[in-house]
Amino acid sequence: MKAEGRLPINVKFLIEGEEEVGGEHIEQYVPKHREKLKADAALICDTEMFAPGLPTITTGLRGLVYTELEARGAAHDLHSGMYGGAAPNPMQALAEIITGLKGPPFKEKEFLKKEVGAAALIGEKGFSVLERLWARPTLEVHGIRGGFTGEGAKTVIPAVATAKISMRLVPDMDPKEITRQYTAYVKKLTPRGVTTKVRVISSAPASVVSTENRYIEAAAEAMEQVFKKKTVYMRSGGSIPIAGLFHDHLGIPVVMMGFGLPDDNLHAPNEKFHLPNFYGGIEAVGRYLELLGR
Amino acid sequence: MKAEGRLPINVKFLIEGEEEVGGEHIEQYVPKHREKLKADAALICDTEMFAPGLPTITTGLRGLVYTELEARGAAHDLHSGMYGGAAPNPMQALAEIITGLKGPPFKEKEFLKKEVGAAALIGEKGFSVLERLWARPTLEVHGIRGGFTGEGAKTVIPAVATAKISMRLVPDMDPKEITRQYTAYVKKLTPRGVTTKVRVISSAPASVVSTENRYIEAAAEAMEQVFKKKTVYMRSGGSIPIAGLFHDHLGIPVVMMGFGLPDDNLHAPNEKFHLPNFYGGIEAVGRYLELLGR
Repeated sequence: MKAEGRLPINVKFLIEGEEEVGGEHIEQYVPKHREKLKADAALICDTEMFAPGLPTITTGLRGLVYTELEARGAAHDLHSGMYGGAAPNPMQALAEIITGLKGPPFKEKEFLKKEVGAAALIGEKGFSVLERLWARPTLEVHGIRGGFTGEGAKTVIPAVATAKISMRLVPDMDPKEITRQYTAYVKKLTPRGVTTKVRVISSAPASVVSTENRYIEAAAEAMEQVFKKKTVYMRSGGSIPIAGLFHDHLGIPVVMMGFGLPDDNLHAPNEKFHLPNFYGGIEAVGRYLELLGR
Repeated sequence: MKAEGRLPINVKFLIEGEEEVGGEHIEQYVPKHREKLKADAALICDTEMFAPGLPTITTGLRGLVYTELEARGAAHDLHSGMYGGAAPNPMQALAEIITGLKGPPFKEKEFLKKEVGAAALIGEKGFSVLERLWARPTLEVHGIRGGFTGEGAKTVIPAVATAKISMRLVPDMDPKEITRQYTAYVKKLTPRGVTTKVRVISSAPASVVSTENRYIEAAAEAMEQVFKKKTVYMRSGGSIPIAGLFHDHLGIPVVMMGFGLPDDNLHAPNEKFHLPNFYGGIEAVGRYLELLGR
């Protein structure tokens, strides 16, 4: 607007502050306001550069099912001296369930010796790590609540224990179906004397966009002009629920031009944002609108 | 003293306030003051009646090794979207270690079908439960600290997680040897990418006393006079470190005359002490001194 006196295209802003806690309200808002939100493409800037100074467009995100798993044993906490050995321990049950939720780990050494018959595997170093981070589903336990965790010793068998467990999803995994299978398998793994309950806190499908579309091509061009390097495409292991939402309900391509860096300490202490990317990002988005206008 | 004007025997009191947190200082005190603590027998009243109104002497206690197990993965907390699938998760490691610490559960159905070949096992009902509570070792997890356990969702892979794990010991299990074996097995169970550290918070051996000794016989007689029922002998699944200490360092029999009740909610909310047992206990201890004097 400063340079030309007017914007080359119409721009609608949709700002949400709930992304990190599951985005419950935007999930209800978007399907109800399709007409108001009608657009040719959506631009999201909540992604990363693959390396500092390297313009990057993200073309795929993993989905997420985040659950709380409660295990309940006795009616109240018990003394482990008096009851240990006969009373069920829900903390132990959670450990067994969490262990059971993961299949046996891939035996690299055995694979090498028995299947490949070589001293070491060769190939593009790091490739399988990126594949695991971007394109493979995961299951993580984030915390276990219950019992005694203070200083020193308390010999309690807790009545209830709860675990936060999430799964990252990849394309073709339906969050509803995954939740159903997960819940059924948790029941199957629950040891005798303990009952379990699964509560879903948030869920979102994975999304992958094609690079062969003019909105993404314009974004790549705009980033190249600002950062003076060829734009690369990457996928991300994270989840941005609105990406899937825009695609499914508005039927528009989602362009993920991101300016975060790998060492930003995302969600961890001392999170930062690199200032040159802040200013470069403003310029890249301006150029993007200009290119779209042409 | 009120009835006779003098005590029939000499009495020494040894009072400790640290029992529930491991009794670290009395453990150092007793071996250093053998001469001062010299006695014919020790009376401990920190045990239970098997049922209300049923005079009970405890003749065996389980020992205890209480540990804190720390598992460490990455140098700092990580975002599970960015790193989940490649970064080690110490919370998962703890679950796997805790699961691995217990052998496969006794398969009652299989035992019935394959080993016994009968439709059901017969025998004194409840016997095996008491055996498990009093005479069998256990391993319990009391709490797991680390990661995120608040309301809602945080997709963190914690850098460190800690579990409180204790073992109840039975005769012939040496706490030092058990700790050594436990620590070695924890190392063996620790998954790749995670390091573990075991810290012992407290430990005590099991103790079992013979009922054929005049100090215990006098206690049984004193309780019978007060509670008007034949005294029974039981073992307890709990641990009283001083019982082993008195036996080992002072070489004297330990008499455990207890007045707690099974529904006292030991170590749990609404812990109570039954008033008739309070007054009956005072009388029983008085009679005991009288009988010993004779």
